[in-house]
Amino acid sequence: MEPTAAIIIIGSEVLSGRTQDENIQYLAKRLSELGIRLKEVRIIGDEEPAIISAAQELSAAYAYVFTTGGLGFTHDDRTAVSLAHAFGTRVQEHPEALRLLQEYYGDALNEARRRMALIPMGAILIDNPVSKAPAFQIQNVFALAGIPCVMQVMFEGLVGRITKGKPIQFATVNCQLPEGIIADSLAKIQNSHPAVEIGSYPYFSSGVLGVNLVLRGTDKNLIQKAMVDVVQMVRDLGGTPVVEEEK
Amino acid sequence: MEPTAAIIIIGSEVLSGRTQDENIQYLAKRLSELGIRLKEVRIIGDEEPAIISAAQELSAAYAYVFTTGGLGFTHDDRTAVSLAHAFGTRVQEHPEALRLLQEYYGDALNEARRRMALIPMGAILIDNPVSKAPAFQIQNVFALAGIPCVMQVMFEGLVGRITKGKPIQFATVNCQLPEGIIADSLAKIQNSHPAVEIGSYPYFSSGVLGVNLVLRGTDKNLIQKAMVDVVQMVRDLGGTPVVEEEK
Repeated sequence: MEPTAAIIIIGSEVLSGRTQDENIQYLAKRLSELGIRLKEVRIIGDEEPAIISAAQELSAAYAYVFTTGGLGFTHDDRTAVSLAHAFGTRVQEHPEALRLLQEYYGDALNEARRRMALIPMGAILIDNPVSKAPAFQIQNVFALAGIPCVMQVMFEGLVGRITKGKPIQFATVNCQLPEGIIADSLAKIQNSHPAVEIGSYPYFSSGVLGVNLVLRGTDKNLIQKAMVDVVQMVRDLGGTPVVEEEK
Repeated sequence: MEPTAAIIIIGSEVLSGRTQDENIQYLAKRLSELGIRLKEVRIIGDEEPAIISAAQELSAAYAYVFTTGGLGFTHDDRTAVSLAHAFGTRVQEHPEALRLLQEYYGDALNEARRRMALIPMGAILIDNPVSKAPAFQIQNVFALAGIPCVMQVMFEGLVGRITKGKPIQFATVNCQLPEGIIADSLAKIQNSHPAVEIGSYPYFSSGVLGVNLVLRGTDKNLIQKAMVDVVQMVRDLGGTPVVEEEK
């Protein structure tokens, strides 16, 4: 079985509609490439009770949890304290985190910035090559920065610590048949290829109605076999299948 | 107290990283304009147990729940059946939904398409001016289409049914001071303006480090007062405040 994961986006600014999240898709794509199955994403506000309950629930349910946001040192950054409380501990100044901040800020290391060295007890640091203040891992929860470019380098730096599965492979068959025509034949194909997950995603684009039939699985050969059937189905129903294979 | 809401995005294609969700931001923004406080978003797969537990948990916790996706009639569309089960009922053919489909499809109304008339018992229809197949409301859960343009017209059509609050107003003060300089003064301003929520959102953009200080609340006068203090703080710390007021 492939390892499972969840993401918690900690950000009132996303909930208010002011900011479009950019971290979900990056993490979703990378986890898929690493063979880790993303089962759930939650977006919550910067509030301690919400962070605690999401962290406790998801860390018990899945192999890995990744959080983004709330790691700074302004009054609305609550992630470190909340995750510490979620796991029955508290934050304390981490000597190595403090050393990194001293090295980076020198004399500009004021009280506020020094708060970035407050890490839950027992947590392991996650490297931050961009702005030095480290993120951290507590149990199976990885608390990452919210700024996309910082989050991404943190994630790539911790990838070595986690157990991977077989990369998830995709193939897409696009056609301009309406879903109503293909639904029943497609269900039969799904039933005869249980190791491949077949999704049907209709769209309207520039006045054209079409559907992407996406085949997903960890075995390329089985995907190929299911794809042959899907392509044949589209032809039999009078459509023109356009095949796109992705990794 | 303003009404609260949660969103459930039902879509394995978003979890796989293949598709960027476009519905969260639209709904988040509209809810904010309508004075409804979005407290949580969950993205889950097209799987009955996940849909049932998210729907039960969130419909009990918040005034309104909006789901998107999984309303079609292919094998991977599970929303109607799952929501029926979440509320202890089952789907049945809804006469008015069937009439709409008959009118739209005429002789092309096959068995698959007719499944779009299967609606949870006791649910109220939601109008679909684009492709006719109606969505539905069961208790405080509004199940909307996943295709953004269809979801949007459905949402605008149901807005009359829900209780609104005072619209949430925003003001943003941008400056290029590092967060480390402003954190403590900002926390003091937050403490003296408890009815205004102040968020601090740092960014790196084209090599420039800056921060957006976002003031959020339902009372424009109180936002203005807090803004005066924030602007003064930025000036006192040697920065150049750039003010942007939004509704």
